[in-house]
Amino acid sequence: MEVLTEADDYTHEAVQIRQDFVRERTGVSLSHVTRYSFDPKVVGGNVEQFVGVAQVPIGLAGPLLVNGEHARGEYYVPMATAEGTLVASYNRGMRLVYEAGGVTTTIMADHMQRAPAFVMPSAREARAFAGWLDEHLPEIKEAAESTTRTGKLQGIEKYTAGRMLYTRFNYTTGDAAGQNLTGKATQEACRWIRARYPAVEHYILESNFATDKKSSQVNMLHTRGKRVTAEATIPNELFRRIMRSDTALMFRARQISNLGGFMSGVNNNGAHSANGITAIFIATGQDAANVAESSAAYVHAELRPNGDYYYSVTIPSLIVATYGGGTGLPTQRECLEMLGCYGKDGVRVFTEIIAAAVLCGELSLGSAIVSEEWVEAHDLYGRNRP
Amino acid sequence: MEVLTEADDYTHEAVQIRQDFVRERTGVSLSHVTRYSFDPKVVGGNVEQFVGVAQVPIGLAGPLLVNGEHARGEYYVPMATAEGTLVASYNRGMRLVYEAGGVTTTIMADHMQRAPAFVMPSAREARAFAGWLDEHLPEIKEAAESTTRTGKLQGIEKYTAGRMLYTRFNYTTGDAAGQNLTGKATQEACRWIRARYPAVEHYILESNFATDKKSSQVNMLHTRGKRVTAEATIPNELFRRIMRSDTALMFRARQISNLGGFMSGVNNNGAHSANGITAIFIATGQDAANVAESSAAYVHAELRPNGDYYYSVTIPSLIVATYGGGTGLPTQRECLEMLGCYGKDGVRVFTEIIAAAVLCGELSLGSAIVSEEWVEAHDLYGRNRP
Amino acid sequence: MEVLTEADDYTHEAVQIRQDFVRERTGVSLSHVTRYSFDPKVVGGNVEQFVGVAQVPIGLAGPLLVNGEHARGEYYVPMATAEGTLVASYNRGMRLVYEAGGVTTTIMADHMQRAPAFVMPSAREARAFAGWLDEHLPEIKEAAESTTRTGKLQGIEKYTAGRMLYTRFNYTTGDAAGQNLTGKATQEACRWIRARYPAVEHYILESNFATDKKSSQVNMLHTRGKRVTAEATIPNELFRRIMRSDTALMFRARQISNLGGFMSGVNNNGAHSANGITAIFIATGQDAANVAESSAAYVHAELRPNGDYYYSVTIPSLIVATYGGGTGLPTQRECLEMLGCYGKDGVRVFTEIIAAAVLCGELSLGSAIVSEEWVEAHDLYGRNRP
Amino acid sequence: MEVLTEADDYTHEAVQIRQDFVRERTGVSLSHVTRYSFDPKVVGGNVEQFVGVAQVPIGLAGPLLVNGEHARGEYYVPMATAEGTLVASYNRGMRLVYEAGGVTTTIMADHMQRAPAFVMPSAREARAFAGWLDEHLPEIKEAAESTTRTGKLQGIEKYTAGRMLYTRFNYTTGDAAGQNLTGKATQEACRWIRARYPAVEHYILESNFATDKKSSQVNMLHTRGKRVTAEATIPNELFRRIMRSDTALMFRARQISNLGGFMSGVNNNGAHSANGITAIFIATGQDAANVAESSAAYVHAELRPNGDYYYSVTIPSLIVATYGGGTGLPTQRECLEMLGCYGKDGVRVFTEIIAAAVLCGELSLGSAIVSEEWVEAHDLYGRNRP
Repeated sequence: MEVLTEADDYTHEAVQIRQDFVRERTGVSLSHVTRYSFDPKVVGGNVEQFVGVAQVPIGLAGPLLVNGEHARGEYYVPMATAEGTLVASYNRGMRLVYEAGGVTTTIMADHMQRAPAFVMPSAREARAFAGWLDEHLPEIKEAAESTTRTGKLQGIEKYTAGRMLYTRFNYTTGDAAGQNLTGKATQEACRWIRARYPAVEHYILESNFATDKKSSQVNMLHTRGKRVTAEATIPNELFRRIMRSDTALMFRARQISNLGGFMSGVNNNGAHSANGITAIFIATGQDAANVAESSAAYVHAELRPNGDYYYSVTIPSLIVATYGGGTGLPTQRECLEMLGCYGKDGVRVFTEIIAAAVLCGELSLGSAIVSEEWVEAHDLYGRNRP
Repeated sequence: MEVLTEADDYTHEAVQIRQDFVRERTGVSLSHVTRYSFDPKVVGGNVEQFVGVAQVPIGLAGPLLVNGEHARGEYYVPMATAEGTLVASYNRGMRLVYEAGGVTTTIMADHMQRAPAFVMPSAREARAFAGWLDEHLPEIKEAAESTTRTGKLQGIEKYTAGRMLYTRFNYTTGDAAGQNLTGKATQEACRWIRARYPAVEHYILESNFATDKKSSQVNMLHTRGKRVTAEATIPNELFRRIMRSDTALMFRARQISNLGGFMSGVNNNGAHSANGITAIFIATGQDAANVAESSAAYVHAELRPNGDYYYSVTIPSLIVATYGGGTGLPTQRECLEMLGCYGKDGVRVFTEIIAAAVLCGELSLGSAIVSEEWVEAHDLYGRNRP
Repeated sequence: MEVLTEADDYTHEAVQIRQDFVRERTGVSLSHVTRYSFDPKVVGGNVEQFVGVAQVPIGLAGPLLVNGEHARGEYYVPMATAEGTLVASYNRGMRLVYEAGGVTTTIMADHMQRAPAFVMPSAREARAFAGWLDEHLPEIKEAAESTTRTGKLQGIEKYTAGRMLYTRFNYTTGDAAGQNLTGKATQEACRWIRARYPAVEHYILESNFATDKKSSQVNMLHTRGKRVTAEATIPNELFRRIMRSDTALMFRARQISNLGGFMSGVNNNGAHSANGITAIFIATGQDAANVAESSAAYVHAELRPNGDYYYSVTIPSLIVATYGGGTGLPTQRECLEMLGCYGKDGVRVFTEIIAAAVLCGELSLGSAIVSEEWVEAHDLYGRNRP
Repeated sequence: MEVLTEADDYTHEAVQIRQDFVRERTGVSLSHVTRYSFDPKVVGGNVEQFVGVAQVPIGLAGPLLVNGEHARGEYYVPMATAEGTLVASYNRGMRLVYEAGGVTTTIMADHMQRAPAFVMPSAREARAFAGWLDEHLPEIKEAAESTTRTGKLQGIEKYTAGRMLYTRFNYTTGDAAGQNLTGKATQEACRWIRARYPAVEHYILESNFATDKKSSQVNMLHTRGKRVTAEATIPNELFRRIMRSDTALMFRARQISNLGGFMSGVNNNGAHSANGITAIFIATGQDAANVAESSAAYVHAELRPNGDYYYSVTIPSLIVATYGGGTGLPTQRECLEMLGCYGKDGVRVFTEIIAAAVLCGELSLGSAIVSEEWVEAHDLYGRNRP
């Protein structure tokens, strides 16, 4: 079977040939995979050898009350998942936070990167080359940005080892996630550089320093995508009434989880932010493989003298888009539109909504753990799960 | 809007009420989200407040030739993604490996865990308690397994800090991923323990030592889900002909990536295994939030004197199921059936197929990086991506 | 200049020849380096090309009140350092803890390791080999222990990646630190294994999994040397009176340090345990290069409702000896004797004393940070320091 | 026993009183500890409650041939250690490298830091405060530098989580290690800041982001002290003749060690740089507790087509001084003078010498591991070691 990339690879006929191939070969009827609601041409830039769709159930959680700089007001959040209780759990957290006045959200940083490594004749020449890059940043920026309308090169981080200079080219990328545009822009920049700096023996465009689709300390420190913080302060009375929990218990458990996470070498001292992020990602056409990076989080909580619980979660590498990639596909676009953030200028609103939703899910699962109702909750809702 | 968990929350009427609520509130028509091919009752245990589906395009990659212990022969792999070039890239790697004789796969370990922490009066009592757990393992096992047909408690790992004993209860879970069954079983075990060991001041059922939906060193060392290794040895001639690449270049780039990954503190010294894993996860009803853990990988490559390239990738925490969760949903089940591994006794076949596919994707992207065709490839296929 | 290892390399004449060589070559008088109080023969097994000694000042801190299983009562602790305020700071912490009733110490685990990696033809054979090791553990133990009187093989940890089996051979080593004896024993075991398991292609005796002289997550999880916990509960009144500090401030600062450490990827969420450990190590003839591993620590603190501060520090990889290595050198032995733990059966006492001292130093510096007296304290005592 | 800090605490009488106290209390004669060659007044700023000295044997390794920017030529390196074979092993590596033309060394970066965390009312105010710091850097620099002659504030790194702004104040510190001067300067800067930015709720001067006396990813990425790279290219013929080893074997073993280190979460993919660093640190009056940070290293090796071995080691956090601290003590100063780098303008020379020595030690132990002579070497020289 050949990969066809011509326009006519996405005709009904071409798709049907592949479906028949699968049916014949595997004996599977494909009664459901083949039931998509759009013309296959729609997915021409998103997938190759298209045969049909996965139908992932979407549940609605909300209202989620957000006091962001970009997202303001109540949102109903579409979550695509097959994990029973997930939507219910986020929904419960949203109710708690709603009654407490909502979630405050702030985007702290924004960088998408590509990370070429340059191999020089020696460490000393690597150091000289690093200085040269600094001096020529304006021209490198011009070269990089010649390939893109929306990407802007912010700067170049540099790390040395042996005779290599590892770099991170940091960009803002508008409403796109930007992995592709940063790849092209950095490729162009590298060609520009190499033509002018012959001491570069060779380079590779990616050296495990952008850590695309992987989790890393460097991204947790320096951000890949958006760094966003969600905060809320919740009275103990609400925890008791709504969550059958208690802020002193929550805080005590947090101490144990903080140390547990430090020992286990985890990328997130919180509970399960990836659950909410993944469900929203799938619903809205994000690249769910970025859950690898986006699963990282820093939780900081405080038990106030009056029993209030200040809770914050910082997601250091949330990779989101409201334009490009899967965001324009039919169901995915509808879900972004439900949140009022499809397309241009939507990405900051969307970022804040996700962070707010994540905070609600953390408080909900955190409550469940201390109230021993966690397992029971799974019993109640997760009827299909073994 | 209330979470309803009664059976009638999944009637067409109940769903329609929610859809109308969304339409009215947001002005979005929901022309596509509402076009699912099944009766809503089907998702009763998988999602709450169901409103419709995300339709995620599936492309087919293959044939993938696997020489596993469980998976043997040729497979066509459904990959649900909206990332242009992804399917084509995996497909290209599969062709390379096919010509080289296929991928050898081996499941090295299998553990699913829940990780309660016990707070004792002092470190000394924590040490004594650890000894008591060892002595009473058979009874604890009995208590835990009383809640499950398929889960088997393999043992309890123990880690101490301060007056806490952090544990990992390790289980095999049959064809299910097992997060829920291990939660219930461990809850029951904890209750049994606490009733018999009064020195336990309190415990929490999860302490950031199982690191569910997160990436951690402890899981990379000790496995969460399946630990699976894929290996292949590829002649240089094939790299040159099919990939327009070269094994000496590949190996040289690997050295730089290995060190880059060590410096950046990444959870995977390879390229992008999360891409393939996520696409297969979404197609087959896996919990895609587990990409957080499953994105970890260890790559080991060797350049043989004759120019052959031995390449291996070990995924230490691949969390998969062929039963339970989303695996029984309509499209998801069809995709598992296409691979011949839906339901009972399928999980080991499925594990090997994923590992084999991942290896192909690694070789493909690795080749693209060294051949400078990576960015161009994105240009060619990823037409919709900014 | 040749390395001489004959007995006569340690005669006064041989040493003097080297001293004269240095004087002539560098013009340095060596008035102090050459003023050692012992016969050079003494250092015959400890150093090559001996020319003299470093004289490192020793200060005395104490009394340190320890409520251990092995160390019980008051100790005066010799600390060899040139860092002004270090001894005074530990001393101040010891006074605080003395008034609070002393430090409780517990040795939680004890393992010294050597970590050979075995390269097999494939992952599948690596898995089979791992099983074979389990089956033959008694014979491997016998082979290993044939080389040592004190070393006992406890077991073999196993980790797989690609076609390699990484192992950790864990031993107890009596009163010696045991790096050498475990090296010899494991070498012997490897030879025994290789002779009987021809599928082993090759092995290396050390593979970065024992992480001798380095800090690692695996050692923090699984212990290298002794894992020891020190605990104390201190009334707020004492913090106020003695430390001009406050437990609520201490606890608040701890929260910030815990998160800071999690973000920075540090091997120790406490303050400066390496300071005390190094000073005691140098005084008592320990291998100070092990500060690399021994600098790791886990701090867990609790603010009790009555204002008391429960504080614990767990050192997961404290590598100590009271026999062998530098422990028998003249000044070093005297320092161990001052603590009543030179030679046989001393190592557990010594371990507990160090852990107790570390706890005192943590509380002292922790207090200084919150009371803003830290910098001033350095001003006052550290007069020579720029 | 009281801490006395008056001048007369360092009289012979005061010291003798303490010595007698120890003798009486412990029954130890202190025949050797009390045999120092200097007037106790000398250690007035370096230690409190002085009772005597540790005499640590010094062996001489060399000639070490360095082709640095600052260190040029042959050096004999004093190493204070009690670990048998250490000096011999480094010496052997120095001979190998000497014959290959020496070690090339380059200082890549130089920063010493103090890391205050500022607690703000919210994340949004933390972000605003970060911007304010950037705007006021010149004034903050002036405030910081008002406390020091040699310290220069280079800039402020910033990391956010929750409502905290974690900072790293980076300085150059001349020939001093600079922990104290950066502490004072940053304290002064913080006071200046707080007086002008009332939204700062509180701050702590150290937040686990400088990771003094600890090992951390942030310091490995961003350097604490000196970042220095040593490089050499060695013909295989020399490895065979001098080391009874082989570059192909070395390189093969390196691959296994690289992956082992990645899996074990170690701070150094090399062999044992801490051994050499510690021995030189103790001899020359460095703060040996900094071995915690200074034990980190990045090794990058290449097997060239002609069999040559390119080997480099990068130490990202080497903390050294040739002025202040223990460097002026009698034996310590003599050792620095032997290297021609005591006092002003010596620190860069000294940095390069250490890096060069470390490289020699890595090649020596690396050879030993592959030639199976490692254990035997310990047998031969380490006669006193159990």
